[in-house]
Amino acid sequence: MAGRADVAELAAGVAAGDRRALARAITLVESGRADHRADALALLARLRAPGLPSAGRAALRIGLSGTPGVGKSTFIEAFGLMLTAAGLRVAVLAVDPSSARSGGSILGDKTRMERLSRDPMAFIRPSPSQAQMGGVARRSREAVALCEAAGFDVVLIETVGVGQSETVVAELCDIFVLLLAPAGGDELQGVKRGIMEMADLILVNKADGALKPAAMRTMADYAGALGLLRRRAQDPAGYPKALCVSATTGEGLAGAWTDMQTLAGWRRENGHWTARRAGQARHWFEEEVRQGLLSVLGQASARARLDGLGAAVEDGRMTPEAAAAEMLDALRRVDASRPA
Amino acid sequence: MAGRADVAELAAGVAAGDRRALARAITLVESGRADHRADALALLARLRAPGLPSAGRAALRIGLSGTPGVGKSTFIEAFGLMLTAAGLRVAVLAVDPSSARSGGSILGDKTRMERLSRDPMAFIRPSPSQAQMGGVARRSREAVALCEAAGFDVVLIETVGVGQSETVVAELCDIFVLLLAPAGGDELQGVKRGIMEMADLILVNKADGALKPAAMRTMADYAGALGLLRRRAQDPAGYPKALCVSATTGEGLAGAWTDMQTLAGWRRENGHWTARRAGQARHWFEEEVRQGLLSVLGQASARARLDGLGAAVEDGRMTPEAAAAEMLDALRRVDASRPA
Repeated sequence: MAGRADVAELAAGVAAGDRRALARAITLVESGRADHRADALALLARLRAPGLPSAGRAALRIGLSGTPGVGKSTFIEAFGLMLTAAGLRVAVLAVDPSSARSGGSILGDKTRMERLSRDPMAFIRPSPSQAQMGGVARRSREAVALCEAAGFDVVLIETVGVGQSETVVAELCDIFVLLLAPAGGDELQGVKRGIMEMADLILVNKADGALKPAAMRTMADYAGALGLLRRRAQDPAGYPKALCVSATTGEGLAGAWTDMQTLAGWRRENGHWTARRAGQARHWFEEEVRQGLLSVLGQASARARLDGLGAAVEDGRMTPEAAAAEMLDALRRVDASRPA
Repeated sequence: MAGRADVAELAAGVAAGDRRALARAITLVESGRADHRADALALLARLRAPGLPSAGRAALRIGLSGTPGVGKSTFIEAFGLMLTAAGLRVAVLAVDPSSARSGGSILGDKTRMERLSRDPMAFIRPSPSQAQMGGVARRSREAVALCEAAGFDVVLIETVGVGQSETVVAELCDIFVLLLAPAGGDELQGVKRGIMEMADLILVNKADGALKPAAMRTMADYAGALGLLRRRAQDPAGYPKALCVSATTGEGLAGAWTDMQTLAGWRRENGHWTARRAGQARHWFEEEVRQGLLSVLGQASARARLDGLGAAVEDGRMTPEAAAAEMLDALRRVDASRPA
């Protein structure tokens, strides 16, 4: 990106729903370069400004969490194709802070959802390869905003369910869906209680063939567990809910979509939709402030000092408190010497 | 606390192992008042200084995690009494950021471990009532250091297993123990994968009477699951390990203690103990720096501005990014106007 003219052109492309412009825009917000950052902020502001059709658009943002092996890609492909067949435009984004570690997702995302990726009504964005959490949150949030501005009706935000990524997704989506596989009575499906409490819908996938009875039992177990959770003000009666689906046969997918729409409709009518988005905006504002305050630690001089003091702490020459006091004092002096 | 003389007196009391002095010292580090803070830092520095017997002391710090209902208090009482009977001095601390919400733990801790709390070889500190996470971590860390300085042989650091408290405990302890109840095949015992990976020892409690077969099955399940985890460099062969215990009958408690000692001994001999403590000190140093940078947000003027901008973000008058930029700019100007 070179300047304002390009930003205007890119904004027009995104607002017109052009997928190549959208892909370039997401690459821009994902960039770590300072000049790219300024362009990214200008682009986002432009897309929100009255005038362009992108300003008032609001997609249904669906967060989708599930550990590897539950059939997430197959589910997204089948579910996405069902929506595009119904005339809806679908964007798929991945929030995956561990992708750099687990490897392969950059090449993998598109091939694992082959039919959906060729669908002109769909847009699939592979996980970014960088892995810093604050950065992941910001990039994901801005990518969602770009998809929304590009007129997508549904934005699926996918996470692999490690570390803090669920919390990021929960603060980005309107509806949070947890995908599970039929369990063989083992405790290790990796469902954290906190994720259960975030879930609006629990879908037990692979409810077909020999696994169907196990899927039904797992669904009943989770329906029971959901019944033990406190009813939330943002839910109509009967929600959160556990359902069986099969991404392979397609059974249950339409029902799951109906439930998502029911929930979204109810929340819109009862003010919870607006309240949730307002709360999310507040959350991201405060998070940006925190990240901004901590960003001084990323500067080379600060990092060098942090490493020096850290070594002294590690080998017992300084206490953590004394070293921290010295570090903070040094940062304050640097800050004060800057032109105001 | 009034001045240096009192700090010296308190340090002498703590170093002599006086439990009332220790209780007062912990109250001091838990205080939010600035003058108390200065005294607390002076106290900690004094206890670490060469001269007092407290300087070189190192307790075995055992982290204990378990969701409500697994019988944690009964376990701590039985385990603690076994250790004091063997001539060891035992301190019990709770890390519980949710205690203010769940209530009752301030009165509850002592009554739920009645016999241990009357034991002159034991010291039980109820959870602090404040619930700010950064504060919880610092207070807990300093309370552990005080117990160590007071010559306790074992410090049990207990957590209820919500939110980030396990991470805090893992960064405080030498050995991490996960307490479980016998499971009835349900997935909801609330064991997060991350906690499994932190555990050095998994103890299935209530392995007595009618629950014994279920406890054995649960132990076998977790032993199998632990076998799937990658062997860590800091573990001798056979660890991490799952065992059955009964806090009621006492069965298995001596074996669990033997395992903890084996593990601690092996780590000491192979340098992992020192490396772990060094890594923890480094972690706390960086955490103090982060908390220090974020502490400007706690000032009344900053809070007021944060609330004003936050409201503008919530009702859509400002974007999160623009509001954050304004907030950071304001904080920078205040900082620059301060005398360096």
